[in-house]
Amino acid sequence: MYIDNPATYTDYYELTMAQGYFLSGMHHKTASFDYFFRKIPFNGGYVIFAGVQELLETIKHITFSDEETNYLLREGFSKEFIEYLKAFEFKGNIYSVPEGEVIFPNEPVLRVEGNLLETQLIETLLLNVLNFQSLIATKASRIKVAAGESSVVLDFGLRRSQGLGGIHATRAAMIGGFDGTSNVYSAQRFGVPAGGTMAHSWVQSFDDELTAFRTYAKHYPDDTVLLVDTYDTLGSGVPNAIIVAGELKEKGHKLKAIRLDSGDLAYFSRKARQLMDDAGFSDVKIAASNQLDERIITSLKSQDAPIDIFGVGTRLVTGHTSPALDGVYKLSSIEDEPKLKISENIEKITLPGKKKIYRYMNQDGTFYGDAVLFEDENVLERMHNPVFPAQKSDLNAREFEVLLQQVIQNGEIVTSLLPISEIAAYCKSRLNKLQSEYKRLDYPHIYKVGISTKLMEKRDVLLKLYKA
Amino acid sequence: MYIDNPATYTDYYELTMAQGYFLSGMHHKTASFDYFFRKIPFNGGYVIFAGVQELLETIKHITFSDEETNYLLREGFSKEFIEYLKAFEFKGNIYSVPEGEVIFPNEPVLRVEGNLLETQLIETLLLNVLNFQSLIATKASRIKVAAGESSVVLDFGLRRSQGLGGIHATRAAMIGGFDGTSNVYSAQRFGVPAGGTMAHSWVQSFDDELTAFRTYAKHYPDDTVLLVDTYDTLGSGVPNAIIVAGELKEKGHKLKAIRLDSGDLAYFSRKARQLMDDAGFSDVKIAASNQLDERIITSLKSQDAPIDIFGVGTRLVTGHTSPALDGVYKLSSIEDEPKLKISENIEKITLPGKKKIYRYMNQDGTFYGDAVLFEDENVLERMHNPVFPAQKSDLNAREFEVLLQQVIQNGEIVTSLLPISEIAAYCKSRLNKLQSEYKRLDYPHIYKVGISTKLMEKRDVLLKLYKA
Repeated sequence: MYIDNPATYTDYYELTMAQGYFLSGMHHKTASFDYFFRKIPFNGGYVIFAGVQELLETIKHITFSDEETNYLLREGFSKEFIEYLKAFEFKGNIYSVPEGEVIFPNEPVLRVEGNLLETQLIETLLLNVLNFQSLIATKASRIKVAAGESSVVLDFGLRRSQGLGGIHATRAAMIGGFDGTSNVYSAQRFGVPAGGTMAHSWVQSFDDELTAFRTYAKHYPDDTVLLVDTYDTLGSGVPNAIIVAGELKEKGHKLKAIRLDSGDLAYFSRKARQLMDDAGFSDVKIAASNQLDERIITSLKSQDAPIDIFGVGTRLVTGHTSPALDGVYKLSSIEDEPKLKISENIEKITLPGKKKIYRYMNQDGTFYGDAVLFEDENVLERMHNPVFPAQKSDLNAREFEVLLQQVIQNGEIVTSLLPISEIAAYCKSRLNKLQSEYKRLDYPHIYKVGISTKLMEKRDVLLKLYKA
Repeated sequence: MYIDNPATYTDYYELTMAQGYFLSGMHHKTASFDYFFRKIPFNGGYVIFAGVQELLETIKHITFSDEETNYLLREGFSKEFIEYLKAFEFKGNIYSVPEGEVIFPNEPVLRVEGNLLETQLIETLLLNVLNFQSLIATKASRIKVAAGESSVVLDFGLRRSQGLGGIHATRAAMIGGFDGTSNVYSAQRFGVPAGGTMAHSWVQSFDDELTAFRTYAKHYPDDTVLLVDTYDTLGSGVPNAIIVAGELKEKGHKLKAIRLDSGDLAYFSRKARQLMDDAGFSDVKIAASNQLDERIITSLKSQDAPIDIFGVGTRLVTGHTSPALDGVYKLSSIEDEPKLKISENIEKITLPGKKKIYRYMNQDGTFYGDAVLFEDENVLERMHNPVFPAQKSDLNAREFEVLLQQVIQNGEIVTSLLPISEIAAYCKSRLNKLQSEYKRLDYPHIYKVGISTKLMEKRDVLLKLYKA
């Protein structure tokens, strides 16, 4: 995860609870926890699940070094517990839907099993990784959907990302459908394409704009994108770019693109396109940046703005306008006995027991809906809306896929770790199976997630029991 | 900065420009850059400047190892440039207002001087660090202002923070006025207080709530906060907490607090307070959490909700509802010659030359307004609104402070690095000098930031020159 030690990358209460279980002799009890989220960010219709591989690799690196244990000793943790921590390794099991999968609210997309102490201790880390990467992969997917397959979308966000959050924002953006990034650190580590050319300061560093453009083109004759808005976009920027495009052409090279970074992008892109077309450079592309997101890109597309490349920064990497996914990690069983959390908010009532997810398909191969059922159930005839159980869906004769697969067994990773490009390809293939109504930016169709009759009955029995 | 190597924690174009300057023999030219932001986040009236020390220490660690240079070679960078990078160290000068200072839009709060290559190369890192930490320190300050001095505010955000952004969110929150954190990783590294007690899963792990409470209190008799909403806050949670408070009291200990994490916090806190008061436990405090921010806390305070401790997570660490500070880094001179960027957006026109900031005071010691002036100016008689120059403020006879101080000289840190507690204390002392009208959550008074007559004239001359 590119930090020195993830063992204490956690909330303090994970450690006080862990010590409490240890000192009470309860830490060997088995437990299972579910990861799920409740609300789709951005008022959208789906979420892209991301961060899984990062999480698995990081869990393998949780060890308490002297630096950590000495700190905890100073904090008052007991010597016996510290000794336990020194030998700690996560030895549990994890089941997960694949990274890059399209997922929906209230379905347990990842399950952790093991002893009570180890399953509890990884909570904060797990939530931190999955919540953020899923948020940004989802945002990236929306932006790519808005831009369309024929447009290029690039991550320019590192300077505005939330501190070191930029590292994994880039990883997640690539999974969600981005084509490249300006972020060198992440490109190097995750093996994804990086690129970038010039800032306004480059242009300002020369006595005049044309010299600045010529100098850049001289050093990068096949990879030049000229930033044309430092002084006067249509008065000098584009005309100077056309001069350089001509000079490059004479030498057998080609100006790649110009970039607009201010002003009305619809207006300037159209005017710039016309100037370049008139000069015979219809193959020079137009890149645009400046506070872009899926809505502004949709607006630009609807105005037929001739923009080929969208550089998206702040609003991608911060998940503007919903900067967090509300994923939670909830206890579902102790010693195989299903557990329930009630809460004062009805929507916060959890689903008890060890569960799995079946994804049912339509005849045309698109997704119909998901059912959450107990691990030991098989065929389902119907599923129920979890909040309005009278609302049922008949599942007979529908094809289905089993979504969760084991990814960690007794602490060892038992799944292949894939390059980002393969995760992104999986994501794309799955999004293709999601009908377009669910991909609408606003007021999307609501995807069906139901629960099995047995699960509903068990939940209701436990509810009555606890309330009594 | 707690990552393996910050050298490539940058945008790709910083490197292509650096190589361009190097191959053109321009990299030895001197340059100066300003850091400033344009818009106050959260519709607020001020920003807390944070991240400076972190930035200085990180800049000292920028070195290109084999891993980085081999990557850049594969990317096509030239061997001569790579050799230059291998020996690279930042050797420039940095001037900055102190970390924890109250700052305002369009004033250059940090200036970097050096050669063109080194001043350009650190841009992305600098923006990433300062933008995020200033954002979160500002958010934290607003939350503390809303909660009031007598309330405790705690950072619970790690699970929802933007990936590794959580590390510095905690650092910034403490500078902005928070009293503690759940984030063990950051508490250990930044020397700030950490704490936390139990999650719902602790309560669920026992056969009944009372046993869960008793067990926790047994292990932490002087540091127990009981989470009372797992099953039924007023029906079982608070009554069971009262039982445990009594048992602790008999043994000479004291229940520290109960925590509410769902439902209507105004209603439940009042009811819980009454139950505990009636049982003789008016000294047991009430902590509350669940999607809190400065607005909800203000609402709770206005309802006289008897909450002593606010646990704030998601909305603190993500800077909800403004998840990025729009800080920029703009070239202001080359070889001591003032430079200007025009842009199609008027508000994006920069201030040329090397500048400093004077902060003028009112007679009662509060802040009056800030003036931006050239480094070589001294006494100012007046300052001008940068956009409406006819709007002037008379500065004669006002006391002022010089805000920028040198913090790096020829690459060496020449300022004392302070513990977070001292930075937080400085921040608090400065906020005390900001009149309350500027600290209002909504529609705050707009703080005066003006420019000197000379700076205005120079800008306007350059504007005409470039436009010609």
